[in-house]
Amino acid sequence: MKLQHIIESQQFTLPMLNELFSLADQMGSIVIRGGTLDYQHKIMASLFYEPSTRTRFSFESAMLRLGGKIMSTERAQDFSSVSYGESLEDTIRVVGNYADVIVLRHNQIGGVKRAAAISTTPIINAGDGKGGQHPTQALLDLFTIYKEIKTIDGVKVALVGNLLDGRTVRSLAYLLGKYERVKIYFVAPPTLQMKQDILDYLNRHNVWYTLESDFNKILPEVDVVYMTRIEEEKIPAASIERPFKRYFIDEEVMRLMQSNAILMHPLPRLNEISPIIDADPRAAYFRQTKNGVLIRMALLVSVLD
Amino acid sequence: MKLQHIIESQQFTLPMLNELFSLADQMGSIVIRGGTLDYQHKIMASLFYEPSTRTRFSFESAMLRLGGKIMSTERAQDFSSVSYGESLEDTIRVVGNYADVIVLRHNQIGGVKRAAAISTTPIINAGDGKGGQHPTQALLDLFTIYKEIKTIDGVKVALVGNLLDGRTVRSLAYLLGKYERVKIYFVAPPTLQMKQDILDYLNRHNVWYTLESDFNKILPEVDVVYMTRIEEEKIPAASIERPFKRYFIDEEVMRLMQSNAILMHPLPRLNEISPIIDADPRAAYFRQTKNGVLIRMALLVSVLD
Amino acid sequence: MKLQHIIESQQFTLPMLNELFSLADQMGSIVIRGGTLDYQHKIMASLFYEPSTRTRFSFESAMLRLGGKIMSTERAQDFSSVSYGESLEDTIRVVGNYADVIVLRHNQIGGVKRAAAISTTPIINAGDGKGGQHPTQALLDLFTIYKEIKTIDGVKVALVGNLLDGRTVRSLAYLLGKYERVKIYFVAPPTLQMKQDILDYLNRHNVWYTLESDFNKILPEVDVVYMTRIEEEKIPAASIERPFKRYFIDEEVMRLMQSNAILMHPLPRLNEISPIIDADPRAAYFRQTKNGVLIRMALLVSVLD
Repeated sequence: MKLQHIIESQQFTLPMLNELFSLADQMGSIVIRGGTLDYQHKIMASLFYEPSTRTRFSFESAMLRLGGKIMSTERAQDFSSVSYGESLEDTIRVVGNYADVIVLRHNQIGGVKRAAAISTTPIINAGDGKGGQHPTQALLDLFTIYKEIKTIDGVKVALVGNLLDGRTVRSLAYLLGKYERVKIYFVAPPTLQMKQDILDYLNRHNVWYTLESDFNKILPEVDVVYMTRIEEEKIPAASIERPFKRYFIDEEVMRLMQSNAILMHPLPRLNEISPIIDADPRAAYFRQTKNGVLIRMALLVSVLD
Repeated sequence: MKLQHIIESQQFTLPMLNELFSLADQMGSIVIRGGTLDYQHKIMASLFYEPSTRTRFSFESAMLRLGGKIMSTERAQDFSSVSYGESLEDTIRVVGNYADVIVLRHNQIGGVKRAAAISTTPIINAGDGKGGQHPTQALLDLFTIYKEIKTIDGVKVALVGNLLDGRTVRSLAYLLGKYERVKIYFVAPPTLQMKQDILDYLNRHNVWYTLESDFNKILPEVDVVYMTRIEEEKIPAASIERPFKRYFIDEEVMRLMQSNAILMHPLPRLNEISPIIDADPRAAYFRQTKNGVLIRMALLVSVLD
Repeated sequence: MKLQHIIESQQFTLPMLNELFSLADQMGSIVIRGGTLDYQHKIMASLFYEPSTRTRFSFESAMLRLGGKIMSTERAQDFSSVSYGESLEDTIRVVGNYADVIVLRHNQIGGVKRAAAISTTPIINAGDGKGGQHPTQALLDLFTIYKEIKTIDGVKVALVGNLLDGRTVRSLAYLLGKYERVKIYFVAPPTLQMKQDILDYLNRHNVWYTLESDFNKILPEVDVVYMTRIEEEKIPAASIERPFKRYFIDEEVMRLMQSNAILMHPLPRLNEISPIIDADPRAAYFRQTKNGVLIRMALLVSVLD
């Protein structure tokens, strides 16, 4: 699979996703071997207009694990030429002469798309703007389900939390919609439920879903519980009613989950999941970050080859 | 060619420039081969007292392309020991024990010279202070003329913009003065013309030059148009008269240029050159940044060998 | 020697120190050979919650000299997930999935210990909080005495300056207490003398020490003069009496020192040592920073193997 740029999760068809996950599966053996010679002369530039050390480190680890090289800035907004008023397009053309692939985190929705439109060097979207795309997060989430549950077809997934504002859950719901017999449970207080555009998309693709606010009722039914960060200060007071307050996972709640179900979270977590749960083998959120490196290795291979 | 430090463009004689450009020409094949084993254990420290990600990335790309290693800071002013009041000399002696070459961007004129005076580790000047030296920019500019026009002797170059404050054009005029039969056209409003010290230097070396304010009259005559950034807010209102307003390059202006002339710019550009010109093969400014990596590779080789 | 984490200087027994110094001695030949293949696929993450470019560069140089790879942040407090309220423990678990060793500089006393308590990836303490531990500094100080004086048993060391607040001198006094027949001269004005806890520890271990305020009297007696930074603004006015004022080293003072004694300083220095002394072969403070790379290489080897 040869990709030009990685801009948004919508660019991935079902066959592409299958090929990507199969490639990511092979990356584990490259990590053990300690990289390949194929990438030892390739340079990845991390060009971050806002800090996100976690995402940056994940990409940089992926490039180093492949055997490649990195150069990095987490304050591209201070890029002296940017502060002089240089266009994003000019910056990308210049950095594209220094590196073989650019991992771009931009502070404006659509910034990465604009960059990719003019760049002959591959661009990978590491997040653009609040509410914009962050495709590698959605891909690693889906890859985690594939690795842990062994299949995505037929999987039952509960997406839990503030679904109204959640970029992550929107992209994941979108990608899940490409698979067969998937069941999606949107668990949120009514005022914080998933937006209609995603529901319409699922309707068009005949994907089963339900809107719920009772967390405990859903838990025993699903293969995957995907918790998201609940920032109470961002939530209208009216929504913080009793059901919402109960979207916190402790040992008692874990007893309701199936023994082979998994608990995911995009991290960082605040108080949604008690640290006591970390030792439960169903807690998959730190394995998710490990899968993130494998997916990013596979994406780098896809654009560099 | 073995150099101890790279401090200022004045340190380069004509034979040294010729040797440097010939070395830089060979660097292209090292990039294709993917570095050499000679530098795989060498460490370059980027020690930047003010952010200039573009320059830093260019040097880091150069070192990585050679096969070497990098470590990097773009906020050396927060270097805890600097904030404690440590002298630049002490900082350099310490970092010199960690790295094999130091690329130094300092915030004071003369800072790099002070560092080089006490350092046994090679220092390369990546810019010191507003109005100070930035020799690698001038060298890559000259190298671009050499690569694009095939010769520097006899070349006709228009230097355009605010020449009064332009560090870049001053250094380039200085270096051009070393070659035979060069003609230099200083194009600026009278109040923003090149300073007398450079004109005196050219007089002493019998270099032909002229002072002009009419941009369109010069364009058909020259091999190289070197545009610089025009920051209108920095220019006295009286100077922004009609001729100055016309130093903006669009398709119409390009028609006045010779078919084998080139258009250069140190970047970042603001509005001096319409992006529509980027596709014109005479637009050499992005190729300039590529040449910057080759020149910096050659300089690194010269101090590391 | 296989170590899990490097948290505090107290974890090192005398046999461990001997083994560490012997390992650090061997590192010099690895530097000359240009690293080993053993670490070429290992990744060190520099995770710094407060800037300390000197310490970070020393560790990064050590990892690169070993042949390994680095990724780096000097503003982990802006780590977006930290600003979201993520716990240190979660951050460490995530970064531990990206790297093979984490060099951690934390802004709170005990932060590194908390990190190590939950991390399966080795953690090395690069300083935690004002007044917390900075074990690699104490180890490189002791290693410098071992290299320069050839033995630590029987050495006579003067620790000079504001001993009340000095983390460095406290750790060094602690480690010196493990050796035979060591004599320690604490040289400070009475109000800035070493705290009782360290004196008690030395008493328990039958280590000879004396409290002094007369610098010149001590100088001819000792093998090592260990100067520390004197920040006059932090010192009660009453303490800046004549003896304290005289803890400044110039050529005249050097004449009082034995010809084979050494002068150390953890750096950065302010005005404690005249730069004119740098050329004196007894001035060991820049060699100390070189030894720091060797010690950190040895520590990296100890946790990575």
